[in-house]
Amino acid sequence: MYVYLNGSFQQADEARISPMDRGFLFGDGIYEVTRVINGHLFRLEDHLARMDQGLAGLGIELDADERARIPELHQEILEKNNLTEGQATVYLQISRGTAFPRTHGFPLPPVKPTVFLSAAAFVPHTGLHDSGISAITISDVRWSRCNLKTVNLLPNVLATNEATKAGVGTALMVRDGVLTESPNANVFGVIDGVLYTYPVSHYILNGITRMTVVEMARDLGIPLREVAIRDTEVSRLSELFVSGTTTDVQPIVTLDGAPVGDGRRGPVAKALQDELLKRFDRGY
Amino acid sequence: MYVYLNGSFQQADEARISPMDRGFLFGDGIYEVTRVINGHLFRLEDHLARMDQGLAGLGIELDADERARIPELHQEILEKNNLTEGQATVYLQISRGTAFPRTHGFPLPPVKPTVFLSAAAFVPHTGLHDSGISAITISDVRWSRCNLKTVNLLPNVLATNEATKAGVGTALMVRDGVLTESPNANVFGVIDGVLYTYPVSHYILNGITRMTVVEMARDLGIPLREVAIRDTEVSRLSELFVSGTTTDVQPIVTLDGAPVGDGRRGPVAKALQDELLKRFDRGY
Repeated sequence: MYVYLNGSFQQADEARISPMDRGFLFGDGIYEVTRVINGHLFRLEDHLARMDQGLAGLGIELDADERARIPELHQEILEKNNLTEGQATVYLQISRGTAFPRTHGFPLPPVKPTVFLSAAAFVPHTGLHDSGISAITISDVRWSRCNLKTVNLLPNVLATNEATKAGVGTALMVRDGVLTESPNANVFGVIDGVLYTYPVSHYILNGITRMTVVEMARDLGIPLREVAIRDTEVSRLSELFVSGTTTDVQPIVTLDGAPVGDGRRGPVAKALQDELLKRFDRGY
Repeated sequence: MYVYLNGSFQQADEARISPMDRGFLFGDGIYEVTRVINGHLFRLEDHLARMDQGLAGLGIELDADERARIPELHQEILEKNNLTEGQATVYLQISRGTAFPRTHGFPLPPVKPTVFLSAAAFVPHTGLHDSGISAITISDVRWSRCNLKTVNLLPNVLATNEATKAGVGTALMVRDGVLTESPNANVFGVIDGVLYTYPVSHYILNGITRMTVVEMARDLGIPLREVAIRDTEVSRLSELFVSGTTTDVQPIVTLDGAPVGDGRRGPVAKALQDELLKRFDRGY
């Protein structure tokens, strides 16, 4: 497997960075994961727009040539790894770069950012999309700039581990009494035929698949309100699902041990799943 | 300069980790910085106790032999770098290790953690300890497990950058209307002769120097209350200072452009600075 690192493609097990990279020392960087269907990077432009927002939010400056290379690097890493047929994901991470001595402040003068890409074959979780999964709720302990897709992911890592320990597929995070996100996906629920999801704010990451679900709901005539679901409203949900780049539209049929609705995938989730597959086929 | 990485001492500019290290991908690790005076690691046992708590909090398991080596690695890195005279700091970071494919959950089976140490000469900021520094207040956007000394440090990095942009020495973070911490130090203030500081909780890191200040206040007969300072009480402060491993007891004499007290280092800070130097000399 080839990865891209700072100017060249390298064998993954030979690629090396300095332990003084600020990605390692501070989690000082951003990332994106883009879904690939038969060589086409689904909504890559949206991922790169969010990448640009993240870099701006962190004050990391790529030089113009390097920025211009990012889309073609996505294509090249697919070709290098023979991933232009079938499904795959491309991972991109940009850190502020390597600087010594270690100090919290931005290096002055700025150092060259570290640019890393990897790619892997991907198999959609089709069986789980049909059957649904179980989830638990846990406290959302993340910072209040969740809109930035940074590699400060420890709360997400720990939340995922809580789900694993509980023997369920994921964890839904609750902040101030409302459902915010899972560790790697946005949350949607249906109450009285209306689709609800946490509004775009500093407390969630506005997922590319979330954007797609919002568009699909509009196009399919599903009423949507960007209003958070209270934890006290869970018993009123007829459907609950999460959306993400590797998650697609994933029904949650059991929450904290109790069935959601009738405990099976519902019609809204099914309609969105079908529509998402169509959009994967058409490429946008 | 030598660093230690996963079993051997190496030239710093040759040391390399994988970009698949979870420290780089998730900020999935903890760190400690220990002050060194003439080869003596000040309160190393407290740093290592906190390291153990951090590893337990993250579910990272060092094997017993590796854990047992950590104290002597601190000594060895000082010797390797000829830092046994004068002052220095030792940096220790332990990440969950390298795992592929990238997935939020803990690798199963667990992988070997990455252990990294570096050391550098240190010059105390004596001039600033006398003159005091200026600071701004900013919103504390960190997660709610600040008691863990992890490398998810992006909010601290961004807060430091805000201070730099404002032309001041540091930023004091405010959460829910009270002063919590600076990006790398604990906050203390004096009101009506009583020393106040944020209580030990999930919202601050309990600094080793903070512990030392609490002990020194008790020994010096300075009344101390572990009660947070409200941002509305700032005008009542006669003194304000921060404490940290490389900060020592650092007076803040201007906050958000207004003088604190009479705008000079106060007697409580001075007494604690003098006592801290004595403790550095005696070694505990």
